Amino acid sequence: MVYLDYNATTPLAPEVIEAIKDSLHVAWGNPSSSHEAGVKAKSVIVTARKHVASMIGAKPSDIIFTSGGTEGNNWILRMALQYFHQGDNSENTNGCGDMNPQNQSKSRPRPHFITSNVEHDSVKLVLEQFEAQGLADVTFVPVSQSSGCVAVEDVLSAIRPTTVMVTIMLANNESGVIQPVPEICRSVKKLKRQAGETSRILLHTDAAQALGKIPVDVQDLGVDYLTIVGHKFYAPRIGAIFARDPSEGTPIFPLLYGGGQERNFRPGTENTPMIAGLGKAAELVCLHLEEYQQHMRKVRDYLETKLKEVFGDAVLFNGRFELSERLPNTCNVSFTGTKLRGHEILSRAPGVLASVGAACHAQDRPSHILLSMGVDESVAWRALRVSVGRETTTKDVDSAVAELSAALTTDA
Amino acid sequence: MVYLDYNATTPLAPEVIEAIKDSLHVAWGNPSSSHEAGVKAKSVIVTARKHVASMIGAKPSDIIFTSGGTEGNNWILRMALQYFHQGDNSENTNGCGDMNPQNQSKSRPRPHFITSNVEHDSVKLVLEQFEAQGLADVTFVPVSQSSGCVAVEDVLSAIRPTTVMVTIMLANNESGVIQPVPEICRSVKKLKRQAGETSRILLHTDAAQALGKIPVDVQDLGVDYLTIVGHKFYAPRIGAIFARDPSEGTPIFPLLYGGGQERNFRPGTENTPMIAGLGKAAELVCLHLEEYQQHMRKVRDYLETKLKEVFGDAVLFNGRFELSERLPNTCNVSFTGTKLRGHEILSRAPGVLASVGAACHAQDRPSHILLSMGVDESVAWRALRVSVGRETTTKDVDSAVAELSAALTTDA
Repeated sequence: MVYLDYNATTPLAPEVIEAIKDSLHVAWGNPSSSHEAGVKAKSVIVTARKHVASMIGAKPSDIIFTSGGTEGNNWILRMALQYFHQGDNSENTNGCGDMNPQNQSKSRPRPHFITSNVEHDSVKLVLEQFEAQGLADVTFVPVSQSSGCVAVEDVLSAIRPTTVMVTIMLANNESGVIQPVPEICRSVKKLKRQAGETSRILLHTDAAQALGKIPVDVQDLGVDYLTIVGHKFYAPRIGAIFARDPSEGTPIFPLLYGGGQERNFRPGTENTPMIAGLGKAAELVCLHLEEYQQHMRKVRDYLETKLKEVFGDAVLFNGRFELSERLPNTCNVSFTGTKLRGHEILSRAPGVLASVGAACHAQDRPSHILLSMGVDESVAWRALRVSVGRETTTKDVDSAVAELSAALTTDA
Repeated sequence: MVYLDYNATTPLAPEVIEAIKDSLHVAWGNPSSSHEAGVKAKSVIVTARKHVASMIGAKPSDIIFTSGGTEGNNWILRMALQYFHQGDNSENTNGCGDMNPQNQSKSRPRPHFITSNVEHDSVKLVLEQFEAQGLADVTFVPVSQSSGCVAVEDVLSAIRPTTVMVTIMLANNESGVIQPVPEICRSVKKLKRQAGETSRILLHTDAAQALGKIPVDVQDLGVDYLTIVGHKFYAPRIGAIFARDPSEGTPIFPLLYGGGQERNFRPGTENTPMIAGLGKAAELVCLHLEEYQQHMRKVRDYLETKLKEVFGDAVLFNGRFELSERLPNTCNVSFTGTKLRGHEILSRAPGVLASVGAACHAQDRPSHILLSMGVDESVAWRALRVSVGRETTTKDVDSAVAELSAALTTDA
């Protein structure tokens, strides 16, 4: 068995497992308790927050722990709705904005979001809901067929007076293509300045797939919000959001109400062991990112070379463009010399644990990400997403390529 | 050090820690992945769901995992808002109901909630927000000074044609008093039937403090929704909600949108290790509840006897009523022979890890729960919440009482 699905989820780093175990044993107290059991748990959280902040060049106070990326993305998009309407009615401060479609269309402008057409469902479906409910207008900027990226000019020209947020993922989960987020943020801010406008366009990126694979720095990116997802970088299944100087700088409104944890921004008794694990994983990224990157790139490039050697012109690498950068671990490959579809190829090569796209997607249709990138449907049907990790060796690659070759030869 | 704050949080049962560790090592795959790593993780979740369902007499399909009790309570209350408005506008299906106060007051009725005046903040603050925003009317039924309970008749007489939900906690976190939830549910349903009304009042209970301490059975309770919180019954910091036959029977609307997990009711890659831990803790409750109950009651009663022996008439037990039942582990005691306030007593007895109320509450004011129960302010200021657990021994109690006695003697 060779696990080549690190973009779906990673195992936990041994150090992360240790941090979680340790916390399960000694930091189980309620961090809000003022006695010793609570104080110990609280200090674990303080340390973790520091490491998570360091990983992205933020301040600890900019980090708010969440249950994961889905909560983070949903929450941030809701905040933008509410930010847009906050002047309208001072009582309407529950994170939902104005939910009455009739009222929206008749009496006041509707907020406008700009995003890409290759976002994860936890952004895409939320914005589609906003649209369907008449709560917001959304521009889905298409990525280019020659780079897999949104064009900065397309984002700029989509801006309207009502634009409240630009949300573009940092790296795509299926193609690995890295989006030009720093350029977008700089250009949006410049445009607003030039127009002498004081109204603000909030800038968000979902960094789920980028963290632990490429350097991510919120100062370089220029974003107001960033979504952090633990289980893509050897951390457990929780997450965090970055908000730049929350409430003082960047608007923040809670999605949930309760016991006041996380400065009332995100109440709920803290998941200390998982937070400890997230912190440890962030610390590892701070210490070893370059080494991780180099290793993954080496193995991924070896994989692509091998595939090319074995399959020749019968492989196409989706997302490999001269005009854009890719994550160092991701290979999206279509086998064009077979009639088998991606999931059929995988079922004939059971030792290769890869996927045909995002794990949370059905297998019975071609990846909408690839189609959005302009990949032909027949090619998209034959695609596998192969993503390597810190432990993947060239020997693993040899074994996987041999199994794929055997599976496809049988077919031919 | 004697930990006597099990209502704030419990340690994890050794078996639960083992289940989590095991899952961290072998079930780290993405449960949505169709390959072996995913299949293994999925099966862990299936087993856990079964145990959680068994614990409360539900079907596995009635259980939806959440990040914790705060999410569960917020979500369920939002669902009721949306349920009330679902006929109004078919497009308005985002879990927030109609968020425009003006529209609410002018053109259509506002949903009405009935709750108690001793709920946890994750219910109380949400309902207060709804009220403040003009989204709902709320009746906070006061608990009786002679039982600590809401009176069933008070709940019934609060019902209006617009009442959409009755939400009453199963057991109070500070007093331990058990609320008459089964009687409330039966009476509300009977009243609706007698009135020949087809409209429905949704019935919810927050069972955070009851699980693992007393039998909790959703059939006996008669509720439509119930909130489950892991870290109060030796499980980790996640939770679940029970919804009776979700979508077919009981209305359910997602709070978050994303990758389709939990049948789209609650997307987000599942926190497999924590879910495994929750399942194991539920299994332990299924197997050993009676033994846990008896042990805790014995130790708690011993504690109260000891306190009475040592302090005589200078202790008052808040929440100990002839007319109602209490959790077997909870002792809320006021020391009336001292001028010291609760937190001052605790700071002089650092070996006693107890609290003056809910962990997530400030210490600089008397417990609003006790005040709501009619406890005098001067008595409430001098209260400690002492809650025992499965491991607490009578020797622990002796040592804690001795330390409290020394702390209070110094004062006198």
